[in-house]
Amino acid sequence: MQDLVAELLKGNRRAAARLISLVENDDPQKRELLKGVYPHTGNAYLIGITGAPGSGKSSLVDWLLKQMRKDGLTVGVIAVDPTSPFSGGAILGDRIRMQDHALDNDVFIRSMGTRGSLGGLSRATREAIQVLDAFGKDIILIETVGVGQSEVDIVKTADSTVVVLTPAGGDSVQTIKAGIMEIADIFVINKSDLPGADRTETEINMMLDMKKSKAWRPPVVPTVSVNNEGIAELWNSIQEHRSHMEESGRLLEIRRERVKRELTEQVEYLVKNRIWERVKEEIEFDSLVEKIVHREQDPYSTAGDLLAKINFYERETGEGG
Amino acid sequence: MQDLVAELLKGNRRAAARLISLVENDDPQKRELLKGVYPHTGNAYLIGITGAPGSGKSSLVDWLLKQMRKDGLTVGVIAVDPTSPFSGGAILGDRIRMQDHALDNDVFIRSMGTRGSLGGLSRATREAIQVLDAFGKDIILIETVGVGQSEVDIVKTADSTVVVLTPAGGDSVQTIKAGIMEIADIFVINKSDLPGADRTETEINMMLDMKKSKAWRPPVVPTVSVNNEGIAELWNSIQEHRSHMEESGRLLEIRRERVKRELTEQVEYLVKNRIWERVKEEIEFDSLVEKIVHREQDPYSTAGDLLAKINFYERETGEGG
Repeated sequence: MQDLVAELLKGNRRAAARLISLVENDDPQKRELLKGVYPHTGNAYLIGITGAPGSGKSSLVDWLLKQMRKDGLTVGVIAVDPTSPFSGGAILGDRIRMQDHALDNDVFIRSMGTRGSLGGLSRATREAIQVLDAFGKDIILIETVGVGQSEVDIVKTADSTVVVLTPAGGDSVQTIKAGIMEIADIFVINKSDLPGADRTETEINMMLDMKKSKAWRPPVVPTVSVNNEGIAELWNSIQEHRSHMEESGRLLEIRRERVKRELTEQVEYLVKNRIWERVKEEIEFDSLVEKIVHREQDPYSTAGDLLAKINFYERETGEGG
Repeated sequence: MQDLVAELLKGNRRAAARLISLVENDDPQKRELLKGVYPHTGNAYLIGITGAPGSGKSSLVDWLLKQMRKDGLTVGVIAVDPTSPFSGGAILGDRIRMQDHALDNDVFIRSMGTRGSLGGLSRATREAIQVLDAFGKDIILIETVGVGQSEVDIVKTADSTVVVLTPAGGDSVQTIKAGIMEIADIFVINKSDLPGADRTETEINMMLDMKKSKAWRPPVVPTVSVNNEGIAELWNSIQEHRSHMEESGRLLEIRRERVKRELTEQVEYLVKNRIWERVKEEIEFDSLVEKIVHREQDPYSTAGDLLAKINFYERETGEGG
């Protein structure tokens, strides 16, 4: 299996695709593989792009990708749809445009859906990013559909986050959820040839004025992505934000936070696994469930009893040692 | 604090409101309070109502509530908005209609928003349901906005789930996500006086025809909630579904699954707490983070090392005991 990592590091596309499938399917060998991948990560710059369905995100990503390729950068794209149960090649429908890049070895595009839980998707996305980072991509674009909490979680993974809005009758800004405003490093008003674009821009700026001053004020970039209008300006803004992140030390800071979260999750994962192994061996879990169903016990006390039964507490306090 | 539970059981509204605020704020005393609440739960029937923003869910809930009151049932309503950072009284804007019930002691209405994570909201919702159940409400309505994975998670808490759709140009059904179709016990086509309602109904039925036969086929109920049209029929369908759930044994089954999930979460919560206490006491967590940031170590191996350091593995395997 570690051959797969060696192949990835050599630039083998099929190894990259296979590794992403393995993390997505939560393969038992996943952690071992990621141990091999991790030392080769940290070089890619991660750009999150989020917006409601129909905001023209996909064509925006498409043109942005071309812009980056012109600058000689290699690019990975992960298109995340938290509302779709499909993944892998399955939602490539709207990616047919991207066939332009099909023969370009320096571009790698992958779609991911939920399959199961939202938490699982967020985790698989982070792991796929690691694979593409080790694969040597300079830039990784994480495109997410929607503007809910789920997308906020996924976007937390990015170094720079672009929020795509549309004029949409002028009331678009009021309907933007607070969480989304917080995560934007750059605002795009796409379809800015539609009526109401100026008003949307004014509203965003008013909202930004109300916020206490920060080291970085998100620029508002009007685009018409289907015509490639404003894409160069957007790419400029992204690069400016990247410089700001690097020079202010903020990039290191957010990456440190990300490592903290990752280490915490890994510890909890191992602990859970070990505990449930022991519980399964030693405890009649189902009979406890039955007692709780019939209100003979409550789940809170029972959880404590259950851990005492496998000596989790005693051992921890040293009485067992 | 246990006085609060005693007051709740006596029917004190302010105790109910206060308890919900405590679980929502993840108060340190929460688990102790819920231990007192749990033995008095299991009597309420839980009805989930979900639909996109603008589908008229709120007026539907409002009329349904009146229908239930006519039948002499006491009702709790929990209005959950996963996209809102507000909670408590804060999103009562659209609940002003509900002032009709403000003086009705047998109705209790509460709004909940995210504040932090989606997982937190889903947990707080389940705990608020327990409070209202012990409070003696016969029916608890859980109203959620949206049709994403987050809502699916929250709706899993309900005994009967109503999915509210609107005609909306006839393409509404195609845009319904797979997850939502799976959770519906009853479909409502609200605003069924709009063009396209018949077509939407036909499409839902065609979709239901394609599914392998199940013990319960979700009925499709047309309503015009602003005019109270179809609400009696909806209430009928809900009661039929309830009978089906009770008589088939399915209700006990899903409640058992819920207890299993709850006990699992409680065990993991206690384990995590205990482990992190020890880690904080004994390990220089931040220096490990630094090593991972600089790619000297990977998070997967480090998590294992960290647990070995606090003797988690040794003790578990008995070497430490």
